[in-house]
Amino acid sequence: MITRMSSFFLRTLREDPADAEVPSHKLLVRAGYIRRVAPGVYSWLPLGLRVLHNIEAIVRREMNAIGAQEIRLPALLPREPYERSNRWTEYGDSLLRLKDRKGADYLLGPTHEEMFTDLVKGEYSSYKDFPVTLYQIQTKYRDEERPRAGILRGREFIMKDSYSFTMDDAGLDEAYKAHRVAYQRIFDSLGVEYAICAATSGAMGGSASEEFLAVSASGEDTFVRATDGDYAANVEAVITPAPAERPIDGQPEAKVYDTPDATTMDTLLDWARSEGLEVDGRSAELTDTLKCLVVKITEPGGEPELTGVLLPGDREADMKRLEASLEPAVVELASDEDFAKNPFLVKGYVGPKGLADNGIKVLADPRVVNGTAWITGADAKNRHVANMVAGRDFTVDGFIEAAEIREGDAAPDGMGTLTLERGIEIGHIFQLGRKYTEAFDVKILDENGKRSVPTMGSYGLGVSRLIAVLAEQMHDDKGLRWPTTVAPFDVHVVIANKDAAAGEAAGSLAGELDAAGLEVIFDERPKVGPGVKFKDAELLGMPLVVIVGRGFAEGTVELRNRLTGETTNIAYGDAVATIRELAGK
Amino acid sequence: MITRMSSFFLRTLREDPADAEVPSHKLLVRAGYIRRVAPGVYSWLPLGLRVLHNIEAIVRREMNAIGAQEIRLPALLPREPYERSNRWTEYGDSLLRLKDRKGADYLLGPTHEEMFTDLVKGEYSSYKDFPVTLYQIQTKYRDEERPRAGILRGREFIMKDSYSFTMDDAGLDEAYKAHRVAYQRIFDSLGVEYAICAATSGAMGGSASEEFLAVSASGEDTFVRATDGDYAANVEAVITPAPAERPIDGQPEAKVYDTPDATTMDTLLDWARSEGLEVDGRSAELTDTLKCLVVKITEPGGEPELTGVLLPGDREADMKRLEASLEPAVVELASDEDFAKNPFLVKGYVGPKGLADNGIKVLADPRVVNGTAWITGADAKNRHVANMVAGRDFTVDGFIEAAEIREGDAAPDGMGTLTLERGIEIGHIFQLGRKYTEAFDVKILDENGKRSVPTMGSYGLGVSRLIAVLAEQMHDDKGLRWPTTVAPFDVHVVIANKDAAAGEAAGSLAGELDAAGLEVIFDERPKVGPGVKFKDAELLGMPLVVIVGRGFAEGTVELRNRLTGETTNIAYGDAVATIRELAGK
Repeated sequence: MITRMSSFFLRTLREDPADAEVPSHKLLVRAGYIRRVAPGVYSWLPLGLRVLHNIEAIVRREMNAIGAQEIRLPALLPREPYERSNRWTEYGDSLLRLKDRKGADYLLGPTHEEMFTDLVKGEYSSYKDFPVTLYQIQTKYRDEERPRAGILRGREFIMKDSYSFTMDDAGLDEAYKAHRVAYQRIFDSLGVEYAICAATSGAMGGSASEEFLAVSASGEDTFVRATDGDYAANVEAVITPAPAERPIDGQPEAKVYDTPDATTMDTLLDWARSEGLEVDGRSAELTDTLKCLVVKITEPGGEPELTGVLLPGDREADMKRLEASLEPAVVELASDEDFAKNPFLVKGYVGPKGLADNGIKVLADPRVVNGTAWITGADAKNRHVANMVAGRDFTVDGFIEAAEIREGDAAPDGMGTLTLERGIEIGHIFQLGRKYTEAFDVKILDENGKRSVPTMGSYGLGVSRLIAVLAEQMHDDKGLRWPTTVAPFDVHVVIANKDAAAGEAAGSLAGELDAAGLEVIFDERPKVGPGVKFKDAELLGMPLVVIVGRGFAEGTVELRNRLTGETTNIAYGDAVATIRELAGK
Repeated sequence: MITRMSSFFLRTLREDPADAEVPSHKLLVRAGYIRRVAPGVYSWLPLGLRVLHNIEAIVRREMNAIGAQEIRLPALLPREPYERSNRWTEYGDSLLRLKDRKGADYLLGPTHEEMFTDLVKGEYSSYKDFPVTLYQIQTKYRDEERPRAGILRGREFIMKDSYSFTMDDAGLDEAYKAHRVAYQRIFDSLGVEYAICAATSGAMGGSASEEFLAVSASGEDTFVRATDGDYAANVEAVITPAPAERPIDGQPEAKVYDTPDATTMDTLLDWARSEGLEVDGRSAELTDTLKCLVVKITEPGGEPELTGVLLPGDREADMKRLEASLEPAVVELASDEDFAKNPFLVKGYVGPKGLADNGIKVLADPRVVNGTAWITGADAKNRHVANMVAGRDFTVDGFIEAAEIREGDAAPDGMGTLTLERGIEIGHIFQLGRKYTEAFDVKILDENGKRSVPTMGSYGLGVSRLIAVLAEQMHDDKGLRWPTTVAPFDVHVVIANKDAAAGEAAGSLAGELDAAGLEVIFDERPKVGPGVKFKDAELLGMPLVVIVGRGFAEGTVELRNRLTGETTNIAYGDAVATIRELAGK
């Protein structure tokens, strides 16, 4: 069926919406693909819904191809299963909770590990039933603190989530790899530019996980790629290579100095140099100073616990990395009040010894290995200490990733240095392990007749977000530019000639294209000038635009390829064949 | 892609689920189409989801055919628009309400009149933009007091809802009729047996409305059909024909009697006959007695108001009809406490005069026209009054439909008598009028350059409910029987022969059918006997089952038509062609 612009439910806007900052948000609203209903909650207008359906079809095709079976669970979910996994609490304010008329607790599903686990437990009981991979394409809810950028980070959004259940780790590995390939096929079909990044597992639990990040300046995630090799990782997942330990014997004793002018790491270094302090027989560097951050760590359902975090003085703390290392705990900096309550914490002069002596837990950057010597706070106002040797003058309770990652840092695998890029998470695959199957007491009879707990993978893909990602990556200053695989229409036919014969020819061209199985949008608006029609066609972004205009008198139509920017005149009689070929239909 | 039973996510159950009462609920659970997650909240397993997708496709096809345009609005909706229409309150406990992390009020959309009105207001401004009809196929939420019968009345369910916007009543009429036809086409495609019933408009507001009721003993709605003609109506919508008024002059005076033995309408009639009372010159009948029901009516946000409801003594009150007449008010019977507080209400002897004399509003059955004479309560214990003439001895404040409808009642249009049937609401179409466009102040420039309020229609169709309805209407004692248009698979191929050649032949038959574009489910489970396979095939209910069994040695396969019950043996070589023809593919 041809879609006629004169009756199509579409109004394009000339102005960017006031709340829009990123290109995809501006363009999807201006071109009439989406409309805002509430913060992070959007309606899909006809154009947007068509893209959504096309993306869903590609996702479905590739998921079916790896043997995943489609089902659909509700979005309205009872509290009990999420209580059992502890996510009712762990999800915090991001979970939308509600009560029914009888006062029973419900939530709107943010992701469905619990429900799929419970479902499989109910149906399957023997190893012969496994492996099984189930998926759904479904509406999800997360009460984001800062919903942003239109459908890029919404509170109601559409996700494909799948879950694999296998009897052993080898099976999990296979299911994980199958998903990795399916995701690559999906994103490649769409023409998305992306990187596969090592990731942390976050609130999901589990071990190995990778994120698919679409490369985009509008991205909220920072990731690294190595200049050589394939290494890529979410910044939160970058592992700092630990240096070799150094001998403690023979190192000079720690010594406390008055340092009235050393109020920052830089002025501390200035003082050290003016004092002629040496480390390892060379002049002191900023990397020889040690910051002692005081934070409060709150485990879910627990009380805040004061903790010291040690970092080389040349690095800023990266709170997102720190928090990712401590998931699901919440981390915040100690407040003035905390300092006031604990007089041994001398602001600006906190050192590792004072922390340990007062029973405060100390976590350190991986560079703080035994035998390293540091210039750091002496736990007294205007005093610092030099030659504080790790493993001799202080010990740490553990290591942690809390330091910023910098462009040019060495790649963890030794293959070149890191570059920093911005990305948008479009997929996340997890080797979950047995966290949920154990919590739900899933016991399956194995080949030996014993009851065994299956292992699980969980795989998310942001279906509605992909629309924003494609708009981010594919637009130009005139508007959207859809890849042929997901464009709402294959071809945009425009009448730009007032002659009745031209109008009729355009109509029959549209009709023939439609009959050939192409999706056709036909701009036959009688009172709209060619300029507005061309601008709209550019804004809407169909891959092919065919214009029956001035050239029609000479028997030609104009064919614009929105993706390549090419414009060619072709004979009217050749138009259908040429367009079919270009559209691959 | 062939679906193989050995790896298909399906476990059929031998036992009916404990909470299931109606056949569709039992069978859809036993056959592994759905699973319960919470009261009225279900998961769609692979088989169920396939039926759902098939029904959605038919609905989409027919909606597109009438020029309706598909969009999708969120389910998570802000309070404000529903506040403006007053439905935030009117919906009562059926509305699922929640708060976001900032404390803002949201609801889960039960139906979207407000949102569509607001959307059209935002996009359109001129009469040239109209008419427009928009629809969505979307997940809806209603916190039913008694979710029942599986997906027949769920709390999370899938609906097609559409909304027409036109500049005048003629346009509304056209859009309404187009929907009526589209709904007939949809239900006819599915082979549903249904009636189109005149309906009340309920909480929606508006004027004309019709319900599509699927005929089913499991239905919650009672409807009537006339023995002659096309009249059909929901019981709530049946209009009682009012008789002609009678002359008051010349009727005997009202007279009060002691009636110690008349404690029910029947004993009152016994007494009247023993007393020799006449009405209209004939012996008194039960239809000459008058019941005075005392109820409390509570308008939304208002206080309960005592009201008298007058009914002929031969009729029971139908509280659902009464409540429907008074929507959106809530109606309940007056309590003993109410009687105690109002001593003029003498229980068992309430009469119309006592009510009116004490300022109580009186609503009457349409049969209580001026000039009719009644035997009724005399507002004193053990006393009744005869010859109470309406319009002389008492007056009423209005008429109301509160009496039960009985099999054999005259059809309102005079075409025969009424039969009573049970049905399930599968569609409801409304001529809404301007309730919402006025509430949202939608002003559109008309042809004369004046600002005019468009009129609106609203049309619902229960997509997920249809699955239960089909299961109700199409099953037999062995299991489900799907119409070819929506069956999860076109054909169910069963290996029932241990011979390797038979297995291979079955596999290649399945492969050829798949290649021909049929959806094939293939029961190749190696360790399952033929009996179990046949039982499963009957339970699952594909329209065609082909069995490669004993006859294979003689070159035949068995073809079972689940819809007609026919079994035929056909040559293996003819199987693909025969099945393709039967499946229409």
